[in-house]
Amino acid sequence: MFFASDNSGPVHPEILSAIVRANDGYAMAYGADRKMQQALETLKEVFEAPQAAVYLVSTGSAANALALATLSQPWQTVFCSPQAHIHQDECNAPEFFGGNKLTIVPGGDKIEAAALRSTISQEESRGVHGPQRGPISITQITEKGNVYSLKELHEITRVATDFGLLVHMDGARLANAVVRLGCSPAEATWKAGINAVSFGGTKNGCLQLEAVVLFEPEFAWEFELRRKRGAHLISKHRYLSAQLSTYLKDNLWLESARQANRNATRLAKALQERQIELVSEPEANMIFFRASRKLHQRLFEKGAVYHLWDGTIEGPKNELITARLVCDWSLSSSQLDAFAALF
Amino acid sequence: MFFASDNSGPVHPEILSAIVRANDGYAMAYGADRKMQQALETLKEVFEAPQAAVYLVSTGSAANALALATLSQPWQTVFCSPQAHIHQDECNAPEFFGGNKLTIVPGGDKIEAAALRSTISQEESRGVHGPQRGPISITQITEKGNVYSLKELHEITRVATDFGLLVHMDGARLANAVVRLGCSPAEATWKAGINAVSFGGTKNGCLQLEAVVLFEPEFAWEFELRRKRGAHLISKHRYLSAQLSTYLKDNLWLESARQANRNATRLAKALQERQIELVSEPEANMIFFRASRKLHQRLFEKGAVYHLWDGTIEGPKNELITARLVCDWSLSSSQLDAFAALF
Amino acid sequence: MFFASDNSGPVHPEILSAIVRANDGYAMAYGADRKMQQALETLKEVFEAPQAAVYLVSTGSAANALALATLSQPWQTVFCSPQAHIHQDECNAPEFFGGNKLTIVPGGDKIEAAALRSTISQEESRGVHGPQRGPISITQITEKGNVYSLKELHEITRVATDFGLLVHMDGARLANAVVRLGCSPAEATWKAGINAVSFGGTKNGCLQLEAVVLFEPEFAWEFELRRKRGAHLISKHRYLSAQLSTYLKDNLWLESARQANRNATRLAKALQERQIELVSEPEANMIFFRASRKLHQRLFEKGAVYHLWDGTIEGPKNELITARLVCDWSLSSSQLDAFAALF
Amino acid sequence: MFFASDNSGPVHPEILSAIVRANDGYAMAYGADRKMQQALETLKEVFEAPQAAVYLVSTGSAANALALATLSQPWQTVFCSPQAHIHQDECNAPEFFGGNKLTIVPGGDKIEAAALRSTISQEESRGVHGPQRGPISITQITEKGNVYSLKELHEITRVATDFGLLVHMDGARLANAVVRLGCSPAEATWKAGINAVSFGGTKNGCLQLEAVVLFEPEFAWEFELRRKRGAHLISKHRYLSAQLSTYLKDNLWLESARQANRNATRLAKALQERQIELVSEPEANMIFFRASRKLHQRLFEKGAVYHLWDGTIEGPKNELITARLVCDWSLSSSQLDAFAALF
Repeated sequence: MFFASDNSGPVHPEILSAIVRANDGYAMAYGADRKMQQALETLKEVFEAPQAAVYLVSTGSAANALALATLSQPWQTVFCSPQAHIHQDECNAPEFFGGNKLTIVPGGDKIEAAALRSTISQEESRGVHGPQRGPISITQITEKGNVYSLKELHEITRVATDFGLLVHMDGARLANAVVRLGCSPAEATWKAGINAVSFGGTKNGCLQLEAVVLFEPEFAWEFELRRKRGAHLISKHRYLSAQLSTYLKDNLWLESARQANRNATRLAKALQERQIELVSEPEANMIFFRASRKLHQRLFEKGAVYHLWDGTIEGPKNELITARLVCDWSLSSSQLDAFAALF
Repeated sequence: MFFASDNSGPVHPEILSAIVRANDGYAMAYGADRKMQQALETLKEVFEAPQAAVYLVSTGSAANALALATLSQPWQTVFCSPQAHIHQDECNAPEFFGGNKLTIVPGGDKIEAAALRSTISQEESRGVHGPQRGPISITQITEKGNVYSLKELHEITRVATDFGLLVHMDGARLANAVVRLGCSPAEATWKAGINAVSFGGTKNGCLQLEAVVLFEPEFAWEFELRRKRGAHLISKHRYLSAQLSTYLKDNLWLESARQANRNATRLAKALQERQIELVSEPEANMIFFRASRKLHQRLFEKGAVYHLWDGTIEGPKNELITARLVCDWSLSSSQLDAFAALF
Repeated sequence: MFFASDNSGPVHPEILSAIVRANDGYAMAYGADRKMQQALETLKEVFEAPQAAVYLVSTGSAANALALATLSQPWQTVFCSPQAHIHQDECNAPEFFGGNKLTIVPGGDKIEAAALRSTISQEESRGVHGPQRGPISITQITEKGNVYSLKELHEITRVATDFGLLVHMDGARLANAVVRLGCSPAEATWKAGINAVSFGGTKNGCLQLEAVVLFEPEFAWEFELRRKRGAHLISKHRYLSAQLSTYLKDNLWLESARQANRNATRLAKALQERQIELVSEPEANMIFFRASRKLHQRLFEKGAVYHLWDGTIEGPKNELITARLVCDWSLSSSQLDAFAALF
Repeated sequence: MFFASDNSGPVHPEILSAIVRANDGYAMAYGADRKMQQALETLKEVFEAPQAAVYLVSTGSAANALALATLSQPWQTVFCSPQAHIHQDECNAPEFFGGNKLTIVPGGDKIEAAALRSTISQEESRGVHGPQRGPISITQITEKGNVYSLKELHEITRVATDFGLLVHMDGARLANAVVRLGCSPAEATWKAGINAVSFGGTKNGCLQLEAVVLFEPEFAWEFELRRKRGAHLISKHRYLSAQLSTYLKDNLWLESARQANRNATRLAKALQERQIELVSEPEANMIFFRASRKLHQRLFEKGAVYHLWDGTIEGPKNELITARLVCDWSLSSSQLDAFAALF
């Protein structure tokens, strides 16, 4: 009954097997091995983006911070949601790598085009004195488990285009969005006007694998240098390429995400049947629900593991507290049902 | 009819004379001259803070950025108003010097204690993942010309104390606040719980003079090194010490600010008599008023110089636009009356 | 016949097995799992340093850059060898993470105490104007494969103590040094006056594992924050703890290094028997030899893989070129002999 | 008898007068005044560089650090002399502003083309792992008072061109070099292949004035943003423009430098007549001489002020110590002769 995060589950057995198989003989380090090139080619094919530049790193924060630093200048500001991981959960990594500011677009976890336009308009009204307008960063799926529709993406990137700005997508859970949207990875990204994607694998069955896909190849060499300077160039790249190849092969990445989303849907339905109040209909692999502290305490006692979102486990019994449940691909129906039965 | 800024007026003649007088013979550079030490001692006496460490720089942004970098760590966030100069008008200097983030306290130009407490509480709820709580920076007088009362200052620094945080005051116009509050510089700062002040002179009759007063002397050497590393150690310090000595002598700094405030009061009264709508009663040397674009256009044509705050000079004639008028010590009654007569 | 680097070989089978075994069920991310704590305790025991703070990262550059940034201030300079990895091979990562300068101690790959003392003495002679003296960083074993004796270490740390400076050891190959010195890990580090170690695993049989051991625990929390801010906090820590536990268990780390050193000794002997000129007697797992370009070309054609150190493969046939051979634990006697037979 | 530095003397009376004259009425801040534009135009004319972008700052370190940050990337290294001000006397400002490394070109205070070529060649031999080649920074006149001949400049910039690198000149004392070389400012800079100059005024009669001349105008806007972000945008620019206009008018800047050089020549001759050993024939306004500590002590007692270069004032009487004498334009013949008479 482990719903704390989708980085708490095991590595997918096929990916682990690939790592084991990769452990044979000698290979040039730092990505100079042949299999690495093959894996990266496959990733470009998946995105239908032969011109893209693709790189591997080992944390999602590294993917985000390096991508944004590459797309921006230190005197610019990056526009993001108040809920963005880059704002709330990276301990100033974006400010460190890019030297710039984050400007919060007022609203919820999803940036709305109108609010974005208004926020950008207000910025850069003071010539050299104020921060200059920089890239927009959106999170797909969001930290609250919501999915931008293709229409919403196009509306946002339209604003970017109007101001001549680039758009970065934090896709730590992009797979969950792609299966939800039922579109191609290309449609979900560059065809919708996205210029760079942090493409996550770790939360979806990999051991440790995040990719950055730069659809504007002129940033390629700068990214490589920033990655090295950020001490993020992994030496034994063959274990990254093994993960990536297997993750992409036969749509394993999409199948895993589909299963994770399905798990969330099943669990949400079971909770609703038990009259549990959901904050919103789950769109991908996360559920936010509200319940009394008393109930949370009972679930914790029974061994359930998940995060409370707006309160602590100690306090008045009847206070309502929102909690987050994250499903990954690995959860079985019986695990889900056993958990739901506790409510 | 020049109300664009209090850095547009002339240097006070006494200060200019002091610069001229200082131009005699040879003096050790970089603040090692004897007169520099005297001037700094005087500044400490003005603040009744013999233990303080005081340093001179040549821009207000340098004073702010160096002070905040010294009081903070790169993984912390600095709490400030959405209107703060450090946020809006320093092109990411705080992020550059300190490496950290700015967290906006929702509300107006003055930070309110309750909003500050709530904002700080929400920060640092994620252990190592999120930014850590850092210093609070308030602006006295604010960018909108408002003055924190001593009570409000104490309420804010009480919040800081509760969380163990330091408080910086951007006092580019501190003089205007001190005369408004009718208290001593000490009461307006360290006795109200302020740990470091950017003490402005340039907007109040100096040629180019900003001081940083660190009431916590353990930061002294770090500040000196940060100033040098920031390329902000002026070589010919004797012209800074000449300014500082004269600025402080016989309360010239307070008299100048008093005159500036008086000028704003006179002008505000004249505008109100002409039925001009003020955004608020002026508390120091700034006036914000609302008028039709048509009126602004006429004033501009007559040679008035000031900044529009929420619109441009071209557009529909009857649209109401807020504008800012800043008075310095140098404006004569006749200049003020001539300007008011244009309305 | 792969001697390009000790990061080109396979992961040790026991370590790979541990990773596979770790892939069971759910575990809290970011190092909050129980096994992580056990693994870190074991590391402290290995170093006989119960008070130490220990952290895992995924590259040696991250270990170095984060450790040095933690031990230094941005206005200081780090003293190192002209051959140091932090100077030559990290694309300004130390300057990025620490904001400081590197001052080269003249000499060879090993810093000599007298040169160090002289270099430190010359620094910081200009008060606030020049860089301030910061930590010393030494590499054990060096980039040239040499090993500091305990006596040499004590001489260096004595200089550090005389100036009140801290000492960092880049121990990407510390294991190879410990077996060569025949001393305990404690004797090779903190008992010799070292304050922080980058403790390598990746070059000695791990998949991806570098630890930082801070013998001064007051730096612990700062290091954690710097690691997160540097985007170096790995999410699925359980696979790191699995590696670390197994690496340390039953002295696997020392046995692997011993085997690597033995391999280098065997190969060096074979080369010497074939009249190949070694730059110096190998002290650990690296051999530097000089041979004509013609010979290198022949070896390359036969499939040998290694790096030329001071020239390229194309050019005059008879020119002498130095090359580096690195042995890891995995090389078999027959592989070594087959390679030697090519000469 | 003040020879400590050329920033110890008074402001030239004509420049001071200009500052006083500028103190009339109101002027837009931050360089938006009309006189500022005129002054900058004049500077471009002096350099015969109508396309150049020119900016004012208030310290030489700011000019250097901002110029180099603008010309470089954070993953590059800046090539400079071991004696360079940017390396020895700016407390890591270049590393702070640019994020990059400084690579020392072995040799004396003047970089020699052959050593430069060799140093550049060795850098960037490791692909993404090592620092990338960045701009070259030379100091004219050098910290040791030597002057690069036009031939030497051309040799250096030829190397730069061969590698596709830019060249920055720290011209804190450029005026002294131009009069020594007897060439035009253009010949001494961009016609010799220099891409950006820190053009000093403070050491040559200004109160506080350093300019940056970017001969490559595509860097203009970036420089402006870096200047603001570095908190180096002075508000009351009219006092800077007053200085600059007067400094350039009627060749005052060259006349002042000529007088300073003449003073050094006269003093050097007087010392040589007294059998004092000069380190080298003075080429501009600095003299380095060697004398016993006993002599230095006597001179100090008589009130002479200058810096010892390789020793302290206390110690064995007969030890030889090198000292630096800097002459500015303001020294009178009688002051020089009185000082020489002490020897």
